[in-house]
Order: sequence, then C-alpha cells, then structure tokens
Amino acid sequence: MSKFWSNLTKELKPYVPGEQPKDKKYIKLNTNESPYGPSPKINTLLKEYNADDLRLYPEPTSEILRETISQYYGLTKDEVFIGNGSDEVLALCFMAYFDKNDQVVYPDISYSFYNVYAKLFQLQPDIITLDNEFKIPVEQFLNKNAGIIFPNPNAPTGRYLEIEYVEKIIKTNPDTIVIVDEAYIDFGGESAVKFIKDYDNVLVVQTFSKSRSLAGSRLGFALGQKELIEGLTRVKDSFNSYPIDRLAMLCGVEAFKDVEYFELCRKKIIQTREKTVKTMKELGFHVIPSQANFIFAEHKKIRAEDLFISLKQNGILVRYFKANKIDNYLRITIGTDQEMDALVEFLKKLDL
Amino acid sequence: MSKFWSNLTKELKPYVPGEQPKDKKYIKLNTNESPYGPSPKINTLLKEYNADDLRLYPEPTSEILRETISQYYGLTKDEVFIGNGSDEVLALCFMAYFDKNDQVVYPDISYSFYNVYAKLFQLQPDIITLDNEFKIPVEQFLNKNAGIIFPNPNAPTGRYLEIEYVEKIIKTNPDTIVIVDEAYIDFGGESAVKFIKDYDNVLVVQTFSKSRSLAGSRLGFALGQKELIEGLTRVKDSFNSYPIDRLAMLCGVEAFKDVEYFELCRKKIIQTREKTVKTMKELGFHVIPSQANFIFAEHKKIRAEDLFISLKQNGILVRYFKANKIDNYLRITIGTDQEMDALVEFLKKLDL
Repeated sequence: MSKFWSNLTKELKPYVPGEQPKDKKYIKLNTNESPYGPSPKINTLLKEYNADDLRLYPEPTSEILRETISQYYGLTKDEVFIGNGSDEVLALCFMAYFDKNDQVVYPDISYSFYNVYAKLFQLQPDIITLDNEFKIPVEQFLNKNAGIIFPNPNAPTGRYLEIEYVEKIIKTNPDTIVIVDEAYIDFGGESAVKFIKDYDNVLVVQTFSKSRSLAGSRLGFALGQKELIEGLTRVKDSFNSYPIDRLAMLCGVEAFKDVEYFELCRKKIIQTREKTVKTMKELGFHVIPSQANFIFAEHKKIRAEDLFISLKQNGILVRYFKANKIDNYLRITIGTDQEMDALVEFLKKLDL
Repeated sequence: MSKFWSNLTKELKPYVPGEQPKDKKYIKLNTNESPYGPSPKINTLLKEYNADDLRLYPEPTSEILRETISQYYGLTKDEVFIGNGSDEVLALCFMAYFDKNDQVVYPDISYSFYNVYAKLFQLQPDIITLDNEFKIPVEQFLNKNAGIIFPNPNAPTGRYLEIEYVEKIIKTNPDTIVIVDEAYIDFGGESAVKFIKDYDNVLVVQTFSKSRSLAGSRLGFALGQKELIEGLTRVKDSFNSYPIDRLAMLCGVEAFKDVEYFELCRKKIIQTREKTVKTMKELGFHVIPSQANFIFAEHKKIRAEDLFISLKQNGILVRYFKANKIDNYLRITIGTDQEMDALVEFLKKLDL
C-alpha cells in the first residue's frame, strides 16, 4: 500500500493467472493452452521475417488481420476489432459499453475476470446463480434492461449453452449489449457470430490463445455490427493506439489462413477430451459435460485441493479454484493423448 | 454514435497516431521511429526461435526482461514494471495514481495523449503554459499538491529540461506522484532514474520504440520504488494479465544486452540530428534545441501546413499538428544521413 495509489488501486482485487512454476518440468494442464504448436507456416514466417521491420510501429488498425478474420466469418472488416488477447478486448468492452454504477449481468460461476473488471470500472454486478449442475438459468437472463456478459462454453465449467438460448437472450434484451465470450467456442459449440447481421446488440469475443495455439502472441478479437466496433476502437485509441505486435499480427493471419491445420488440432483435442471424460467417469469422477478444451470434474472420495496438490507433486499441473460452490472441482486442460494418459494412469493408482 | 456506447465513449477524443499511407514508398520521418533496425542479435533470435512455444502464455510478470532492465539501471527487479509500449504504461499510471476528478498537472505543449487520458479517466487537467520558446516554467511545477506528468525531453518540441530542475520538481512535491516520461531520454538528456533511490514519488517511464528500435514489438517500462511499481501491477492485473508477447519479451532482453549496438545507433542519430539542425538553420529555419530523435522547426516564409503537404507530395512524411501555438511548426524525425540529405535537398530547392 502506498500513499500515491489511487483509492481505486487500493481496493482492487486483481485477477490471478494460473501458476507457472519453474522448479521442474510439468505436464501443464492448468491454463487451457493448446498442446499443439501453431500452424507450421508460422515457423516459416519467423525464419523468413526481416527483423529490421520491428523498428516500425505496427499498423494501428490491424488492417490485414481484420480483413483475414472478416473473410473467415463472412463479415466486413468494419465488423472486426483486434485487441491484445481477449482479456484486453473484454476490458475495453467494459469501458466502451458501461458507465460507472451501471449494472452488468453475469453468472456466479464464470470467468473470474468479470468480477475484476466490474470492480475496476465501478459497475454494479447483477450476478445470476447457476444451478447445481452449473447450468445457466436462461429465463433469468431475459429482459434484463442491463448489459450482459457470459462465456459460451462457460469457464471454468466447460458447459455449453445451446445457440437457440443465446439468441433468446440477445433478442429479449434489444436495448442493452449482450457480450458472448467465446474463448472456447471452437471445441464443439456453435458461435453467435451468425446473429450479428440481425441483432445490433450482440458482440462476440474470441481469442487466438486456445484453438489457434497462439497464447504467446497476445491476440483476441471482437465481432459485431460496425457501430459497436467503433465504440471499442474509440476506447482503444484513448488507451493504447498500438497494442498489437507487428510479428504477432502476421502470425495471426497465418493461423486463420491455415484452416486445415486448425481443423486438425481442434478435432484432435475434442477426440482426446471425449476419451478422457469417458475414462474419468469410469474412475468415479463426476464430470460436467464440456464443449471446451478443458474439463471440470470432482470425485466424492477425494478433496479437490488434496488431489490438486498430489498431482502437482507428481508433475501434473491442473487448476484449482478455492471458491464457493466449486472448491471440490478441478479444471483440467486437455493435453495430448500421451499427457492425458499420464494423468489417467496417476488417477488409477489412487484407487478411489 | 450508438445507443450501446457508454456516455464516456461518446465524449472521448481519441489520440490520432501518425499516418501510414500506403500509396507509395515514403521517407518516413513522422512517427519518431529509429532509422536503424534493432540489434542484429534479434534477427538471430527469430531465426532460431521454436514457434511451438507460442502456444504457451507469456510469463505474466515478465521476469527475465525486468531482471535485464534492472541490472542495466542498477535497480532491483521490483523497481521495474513492463507494459505494452509506454502508452499502455502511461494509461495504467493514470489509473494507478489518480482518482476521478483528481487534478493532473502537465504542460500545454506536450504529448497529446495526456489530454486523452485525462478525459478517459475523468481527471481535472491543470495545464501549465510553456513560454514562447517552449521552455517549461519550472516554478509553476513546484509545490503543486497534485500529480504531475511531463515528457523529458518534451514532445513534440524536443526541448530538454536540465536534470537539476527535474529534481526540484520531484523534491517540492513530496506527497504527489511525479511521472517523468523519458521516451526520448537516450538522445542526449540525463535520466531521472538516479533520483529513484532518494525519492518515493518519482516514476520514470521509458520505451523500446525509439532508441531500442523496437516500435513494432510493443514494449515500454516504468522505473520507481517498489510500492509505486506494485500499484501499477495491481492495475495491470485488473486489466490484462499478459500484455507482453512471448517473442517481444525476448527481443527486449536482446535489445538491452547489446549495449554496443545501442550506443552506436543513438550516437549516430545524435550526430545526424546536429548536422541537420545546422543545415536547417542555415536555410533560415527556426529550430527548437532538441535532445530527442526529432526536431521541431518553423520557417517564417512558408506555412508549416503548406510545407507538410509539399513534402508529402514529394515522398517525405513529417508530422504536422494543427494545434494552437504550434501550427506553424513541423516535427521531423531524424532518419539516416541519406534520408536527411534528401530532406535538406528538397528544402534547398524551395529557395526560401
């Protein structure tokens, strides 16, 4: 604490990212990264890149990348906003669409950064309680007269909300923004992108950090009608004009263009997830249905925190949230088949 | 304008970065980039980098880069904060040390982003008028009882404030933050870094975008006592945990370690600046004394805006600010000798 901190700074409760211990080599299943590297074309790109170009500022509007993404989704360039990871995009959303003391609606079990943003921008959270199986009570998100944000699939549960319900939420809140945070959409869900042409209040946020294997490059994006995107751009240009690294932007273009590799990786991860879920259920775990690149699971015979520690001691990192309602669950990222086999072998030995 | 924008978003007056026209090849003297590429070691780094590592999140605390910078300046790691360019660092400063409606003191002719931040975070600017030669009236910055920010050397003028006056400002404002924005300090000025050990209210902000030739990599940093840095970290971790690209962080380390190359480039730029200033004065230009990698100049016989347009038509981009008190000046980045020769040749032909 310092006398120079603003009052707000003193009160903040910052987000806590997953740990990155360096004491030994871990099987890293704790931050939902892809177990597969990015498109091999990115390796070639780096080898051939002229480092002298790094002396120049990036294009502040990320034209090439916006063009590439808009083509992929059948949108126009003006309907795409690029940010430094989806976290920055989300932070800018909280600034662009909410004023101090505005209500913001989100689920109680959800991406924990929403609470942090609500605090940072001094909003009034209207927190909706999920049911015991972490399902979203859709009716409680209808006709809210307040901005809404939720991840789909949800994090850290992995649970997907069927797209017709997403539309219902968008449709019944025509005068307020509905932000669908689709960080994990490529692992089995259907995107709300298709609603953009018909609804001016939906903003879809996605990331390069999961299905595009570029967590290290800090790229995220938002998709929505032109006026929504303009609002984000205004805030971004009042905060940091050039948040996107020159090289990262080129990597992002390659990641989107190599559709074949993208499809290969995401299908492989889905396959590995299904296999892992099946085995874990056989071992007596209660696994929440997941359409993400992670699973959320508990076992009645062992405390999640104990299992978390035990896994870590044995070289396997997963994520444990010491939080109300989820403190007996572990969030486990889907790694390679080999990594998941190692996890399963360890769990089998516990003989629960 | 959209009904979904926050009231604040509607009122913002975003920063306008220098133009990057693509209609033809320009001599680019408009955004204060280095004319020289970054350390050749960065080229090697890119060639040898394993692109698969990009699937992983960067270290959220940028340990290696903080360690490298702290060693360079004789500080501890806890006295270094890394951000996505010095613009992001400055934006986070405005959040970390100021509450809504707080006063913030800065010069009238200065980095135009300060006005944008004051608006974004709803502060009350206390704007100090520079004299006709753009000198800072030091006495007006003493005993302010409000947070202070100023660039040294100043932008867009290039004028340097002698370090003893910087200390006086820090010393007479012991209860408020003094942010010294040293984006251009490596081109001839002396850094306020040396005051960090004695004063808990000074924060020095620097960038990799100018003297380190890495504008494309989006790296900036702040130096100050541990508690000031902690405040920045709290805000950063409430906004975006991982703003630094994995590869950019490694590039930053190389840029700091290659001291020899850094010295070579900055000395060359200083030399070219002195030569250019001399010639421009001979051509009748009034040139503000500069310790930066740019010069700020006017000529009584030609309107700056006309000269700006004429230069652009002839393939030379410089920066023109259509703003009160400086609308007859051009800000000209120092390029290579060859680039400056081309500029000078063009100016000579005008026969002013």
